[in-house]
Amino acid sequence: MPKIDLAAIPQTNATTYPAEHSAPVAGRWFRRLAPATGLSHFGASHVVLKPGAWSSQRHWHDGEDELLVMLTGEAVLIEDQGRTVLRPGDICAWPQGVANGHHLINESDADCSFVVVGGGARTGGGYSDIDMIFTADSRYLHRDGRSY
Amino acid sequence: MPKIDLAAIPQTNATTYPAEHSAPVAGRWFRRLAPATGLSHFGASHVVLKPGAWSSQRHWHDGEDELLVMLTGEAVLIEDQGRTVLRPGDICAWPQGVANGHHLINESDADCSFVVVGGGARTGGGYSDIDMIFTADSRYLHRDGRSY
Repeated sequence: MPKIDLAAIPQTNATTYPAEHSAPVAGRWFRRLAPATGLSHFGASHVVLKPGAWSSQRHWHDGEDELLVMLTGEAVLIEDQGRTVLRPGDICAWPQGVANGHHLINESDADCSFVVVGGGARTGGGYSDIDMIFTADSRYLHRDGRSY
Repeated sequence: MPKIDLAAIPQTNATTYPAEHSAPVAGRWFRRLAPATGLSHFGASHVVLKPGAWSSQRHWHDGEDELLVMLTGEAVLIEDQGRTVLRPGDICAWPQGVANGHHLINESDADCSFVVVGGGARTGGGYSDIDMIFTADSRYLHRDGRSY
């Protein structure tokens, strides 16, 4: 049935971030929805943030759009303009190529969860708060091009 | 701010369905999120179904994937296999080309709402319960090719 059985999809807190930037996402537990359901035109993840966890380092994508739908709990969206509290039913959109990094932080004492969709071209992107970029082939580099 | 201000986006119950098939979606009030936010790689809508309203005629897409996230209220998903009640936090995925039509019906006495994402190629599709197909250029035809 196309209603997704989340419990049947493996959940992971894996990250490919360099070790020095991975601690904030240790409490980010996600399920990849596209491989489990046969979607091929965009990606989607169901994400649970434990208290204190970040959704990612604050980033943007040069060639991909993102859409987020808040499901449960509360998180704080951080962008260049500041902080916005997100609650169930809130929706966020980040079009490709806008160099205004975003991430969510769960500052509450309970889990929060959301669905995030991403689609477009994997052409890399940047991070707002750390000396890092990501490339079209998913490598992490310092801004001057040195490898991590 | 990338948190979407839904109230600032026009809401419509417009439909391009032929008149004889449009009545069930008269209580479907939607907002197109991509044009309002600059997303270009997939489409997304915020949809409210009034009591009794259908999300669409029961359909599938030949070249587009769909993902739905239930936000508020309750709806019944109808597919070839039968009925599934959807509640807030439920997620559905319909990969392209699966000729098993789906739609949601609000059988409750309160509004329900969801976000639906669609991406891929507009190559047409079919309807399960009525003599209608839709084409790559968004025309509605009878199954034998006659126009509506």
